[in-house]
Amino acid sequence: METPHQHVAILIIGNEVLSGRTREANAWLAAQNLFDVGCKLGEVAIVADDQSMIVQTLQRLRKQYDAVITSGGIGPTHDDITMLAVADCFDVPLLEHEDTIALMLAYYGQDALSEGRRRMARLPHGAVPIICEHSIAPGAHIGHVYVLAGVPHIFASQLAAVLVDFKGKQVFIRQEIEVALAESTFAAALGKIQERYPSMDIGSYPARCGNEPCGKICVSGVDEAVIIQVLDEIKQMLKDVKKS
Amino acid sequence: METPHQHVAILIIGNEVLSGRTREANAWLAAQNLFDVGCKLGEVAIVADDQSMIVQTLQRLRKQYDAVITSGGIGPTHDDITMLAVADCFDVPLLEHEDTIALMLAYYGQDALSEGRRRMARLPHGAVPIICEHSIAPGAHIGHVYVLAGVPHIFASQLAAVLVDFKGKQVFIRQEIEVALAESTFAAALGKIQERYPSMDIGSYPARCGNEPCGKICVSGVDEAVIIQVLDEIKQMLKDVKKS
Repeated sequence: METPHQHVAILIIGNEVLSGRTREANAWLAAQNLFDVGCKLGEVAIVADDQSMIVQTLQRLRKQYDAVITSGGIGPTHDDITMLAVADCFDVPLLEHEDTIALMLAYYGQDALSEGRRRMARLPHGAVPIICEHSIAPGAHIGHVYVLAGVPHIFASQLAAVLVDFKGKQVFIRQEIEVALAESTFAAALGKIQERYPSMDIGSYPARCGNEPCGKICVSGVDEAVIIQVLDEIKQMLKDVKKS
Repeated sequence: METPHQHVAILIIGNEVLSGRTREANAWLAAQNLFDVGCKLGEVAIVADDQSMIVQTLQRLRKQYDAVITSGGIGPTHDDITMLAVADCFDVPLLEHEDTIALMLAYYGQDALSEGRRRMARLPHGAVPIICEHSIAPGAHIGHVYVLAGVPHIFASQLAAVLVDFKGKQVFIRQEIEVALAESTFAAALGKIQERYPSMDIGSYPARCGNEPCGKICVSGVDEAVIIQVLDEIKQMLKDVKKS
């Protein structure tokens, strides 16, 4: 298995996100972290706590990307079926992980090692546990799949523990400027600048600011000097548009 | 085409989401709206401003769901390619929509009808424009695909304009209770309640509250009387767990 991974997908698992109960936060955090280490996040998929959907989506993403990070469905309750689905994907059994059981025994004691807690010690056979400070129940790393928790602070802590496996060739840098013009007035000129700098990702993001047009133009790439040059050209272009 | 749609997917398009620049908000809003009208949101996909990815993902989602709502990529700039991708999916040309051009002419006047603005009047041939109060540039409705803006207040307004096409057989109701116990202590008992009420969706969502365990148990379904009964059983179960 080659690490670091460069082209990544995220799979969010949870009825609570699809029903609108919970605003998803983990994909957003991971997206920021991956950007900062120069990884390309190619896709995010959000699916329900439904084993066939998880398996089907994970199989698709595994084929298309270097690595997949999943979030959610690894707790002790009936709807926590991600580990089972991942075991299914890799065609391995889901087994109690001995070292994890030993850690739990030391932490909780024999009497408090409930069925629910034992359930959280079950990992796909061959997976490496992902340990973090916020939970004794581990995530799991198997193949190019990283199975993390859905609870945000545990997800963040587990992600930090595996982020070393993710790294692009160069880190991305992003800079943006405010724009007080309607997007349509500068769109064509901005497109011409983008054409001249195909390695840069230039985006325009209008916002809502009362009756006046406003928004931001964002330039990202790996070469800071070029980003600054592109931003200078954009600023000049915006001045020219304003004058005309 | 049969409406109302009951089983829906959302496709979010935008580099700014995948790079972590922007926290996605539109899928969350749509998820809440769809839940409230009894529609099942089956999947959310987030992809980049990349035509082949948009086409490939939209084709997949169109096959699997009654309807697809897209968000993003319909502005005037070079990276706004959603309408082109949708036209490609339906194998129709992307054409200036005459009524939309007429509306823009009336609104901006001939002199201010820039290339960027004309670009936003191009719809896949056969699409019906989705008009809202916040933007003269329309979304588009073609087949079972609803193409909406990415800017949140425009997305919300366009979604409101088409929500009449989405309706489940019965609306969903959700109720939840606070729990001050570790999830693993009641997980098995909660699973047994879920087994007895297969039509209910019972979820447990731990949170972070200092050193004490805390979280919520959430029950949703279409029959309020059953929801109340299930919640009563859960409350009793939690009392029994606490005593034991």
